Amino acid sequence: MKAEIISIGSEILRGQITDTNANFIAKKLVELGIDLEHISAVGDNPKSLLSTLKLALQRSDLIITTGGLGPTEDDITYQTIARALNLKLIKYPEAEENLKRILKKINKTISPSNLKQVYLPEGAKIIVNQYGTAPAMILEKDNKIICSFPGVPHEMKNLIEKNLIPYLKKKFPPSTIKKSKTLKITGLGESSVNELIREYINKQTNFSFGIYANPEDIQVQVTTQAPTEKEVEKLLQSSVNQLTKILGNYVYGTDKQSLEEVVGNLLKTKKLKVAVAESCTGGMLGKMITRIPGSSEYFQGGVISYNAKVKEDLLKVPPKVIKKYGEVSNQTAILMAEGVRRCCHSDIGISVTGIAGPGGATEKKKVGLVYMALADGKKTITQKHQLFGSRQLIRLRSTRRALNLLRNYLISN
Amino acid sequence: MKAEIISIGSEILRGQITDTNANFIAKKLVELGIDLEHISAVGDNPKSLLSTLKLALQRSDLIITTGGLGPTEDDITYQTIARALNLKLIKYPEAEENLKRILKKINKTISPSNLKQVYLPEGAKIIVNQYGTAPAMILEKDNKIICSFPGVPHEMKNLIEKNLIPYLKKKFPPSTIKKSKTLKITGLGESSVNELIREYINKQTNFSFGIYANPEDIQVQVTTQAPTEKEVEKLLQSSVNQLTKILGNYVYGTDKQSLEEVVGNLLKTKKLKVAVAESCTGGMLGKMITRIPGSSEYFQGGVISYNAKVKEDLLKVPPKVIKKYGEVSNQTAILMAEGVRRCCHSDIGISVTGIAGPGGATEKKKVGLVYMALADGKKTITQKHQLFGSRQLIRLRSTRRALNLLRNYLISN
Repeated sequence: MKAEIISIGSEILRGQITDTNANFIAKKLVELGIDLEHISAVGDNPKSLLSTLKLALQRSDLIITTGGLGPTEDDITYQTIARALNLKLIKYPEAEENLKRILKKINKTISPSNLKQVYLPEGAKIIVNQYGTAPAMILEKDNKIICSFPGVPHEMKNLIEKNLIPYLKKKFPPSTIKKSKTLKITGLGESSVNELIREYINKQTNFSFGIYANPEDIQVQVTTQAPTEKEVEKLLQSSVNQLTKILGNYVYGTDKQSLEEVVGNLLKTKKLKVAVAESCTGGMLGKMITRIPGSSEYFQGGVISYNAKVKEDLLKVPPKVIKKYGEVSNQTAILMAEGVRRCCHSDIGISVTGIAGPGGATEKKKVGLVYMALADGKKTITQKHQLFGSRQLIRLRSTRRALNLLRNYLISN
Repeated sequence: MKAEIISIGSEILRGQITDTNANFIAKKLVELGIDLEHISAVGDNPKSLLSTLKLALQRSDLIITTGGLGPTEDDITYQTIARALNLKLIKYPEAEENLKRILKKINKTISPSNLKQVYLPEGAKIIVNQYGTAPAMILEKDNKIICSFPGVPHEMKNLIEKNLIPYLKKKFPPSTIKKSKTLKITGLGESSVNELIREYINKQTNFSFGIYANPEDIQVQVTTQAPTEKEVEKLLQSSVNQLTKILGNYVYGTDKQSLEEVVGNLLKTKKLKVAVAESCTGGMLGKMITRIPGSSEYFQGGVISYNAKVKEDLLKVPPKVIKKYGEVSNQTAILMAEGVRRCCHSDIGISVTGIAGPGGATEKKKVGLVYMALADGKKTITQKHQLFGSRQLIRLRSTRRALNLLRNYLISN
């Protein structure tokens, strides 16, 4: 079976929006094991849409459209589908009822242009849209399936999840179930990950692998298939275990786990509290830790010591240390971490000080030079990094390294 | 003239990436006054690509492809274009030279698969790619123009800006120039903006308007056209002036200006320094201010006072105030702003304290309740907001409101 997506809306062709709907639907089709062969975007133009639909009916078995279901003149999806298939438009009472309900909620009465929205091609199985006025549909004709969904992303996503996916699963029960699991890695570059796991990957025949590099981390995706959900899970887990054995502590989590969540869970388990002293990251480390709901259980707070005077007064870094070694130095990082641990009454203090650029570099200290330290009252661990990229990337990478320093400390202590 | 974009890459159809390239090119074509009628995405599949190219050659005059120019077996763009147009592939020495230069830079030698990249359809005007190994091209044949660019976004963008756009401008000098300007608004909702400017908008015949709502702000886009660049600019400026008159200080900037940049410029001009005291935003306000290069000129730093003890010890908020009014209160916000101003030696102190949720609400204080204050040593201004949305949105909106509080203070003082 061949599938095709048609995104309808002149705003896509005018560059006003990026077609993210197609990406959402593409992912869903992969999960169902359905081959997507084409994605097309067309404007609110009856002629273009008609020819695109006719072509799709020739080359594809399953056609999913999004957009063009609104109340205005421009919204022509149902009329054009009816024309392409030689069908009449008929009134669907369920759609009218829903329309009235929605309009009442926002204190509006039904207008002639709204009424247009209750007409769908004859034979369509209507999907009432509880989130908006535009009904969706699934239409089977001559061994082809055409489905239409609104263009508003949250409406489209909800209606597809709740209606199209169960329909397709029932209609085309997948002979094998295909699933992926993602390992999330930090502290190693893409090519190092590749080198470490290449030998293992090359030996596998049941799995396919993808390595993806993000500004935040490296991800290794393992995909496999089997007749049952249980078997797939078992296979995936065995590969994940092997990969984790090879990559060790560089793996911080899987799938949707974030580094800050993993660190938060470790802090909770160990009943430890942390505080941050930030220079070049300017608050980004604190912001990332507090993204997690309930982080107040283990995050005390911190000091954004952008100016030397703040390092001296709040963190008690002696002016002579700053004068001798500079604000961006191992010595300053150590005293910042120890200082913030004390003044914020935490078990652990972490500090970051560096040159995010583009200004601030000297002959000996280049843009991207970052020192970080972790103090626990007994010892203080330090790290020095030379990072690359834009100001934002250097700040982001510094923050991730600091979180990873904390993660490694928590794992091994 | 009708234009068409073809994005090539199985990763688009598998949902692994969103096709943002098409959006970039669509925007550029709008600026040139060229009508884009179709966007298609196809996989790395010779049959699909060939039929898509043939169709495009029938229905469009200008075809722009991205992707499929790499060194692997999967990369089939040039072979398939040559087949669709009945052309031979020939070796381009400029491409070979560039390939060698790039590979040398990363200490690699030329491999047979790389060599494939130096063959392009006969008659193509090659565009040497200084950012990567894949050359781009512009090919004119039988009154059709086919251009191919790499799929790597930064390579594609640079090569299109520097080569395709000047080529199209020369080839199809636009009879009128079309341009847009965007007003950025904060502190007002979408419907309020709409109500305020509706009367003005309805009276205009020379302009088109769009109102867009983001989590960060509301944007009003004005578009117009005229025979010369100068006239367009004049027209746009007149409309922007009118809109700014109506919307007043809610307009914080235009086009690419960010709120933190505008605030930074005001602080620089007035030679004032600021410090932040953050609770629910956890460092986000500091992070946003320090996104701007050179922010050390006006940003002293601050205190992330997540825990009450940090509010008491570093910001000197008396425990009895916190006990009586709570951490999330007008009184605490005032003392936090005054405290951070003092301890960070700044002219202005700003504080944010609130309930970002999902936990932490009480009967009287709901999720989204946020207090903020600004202290300048003479007076302290406060604001109370009841915000909506997820934890992340409440934090983001709190940060934006605090920046806007600072902006309004700087404008009127």
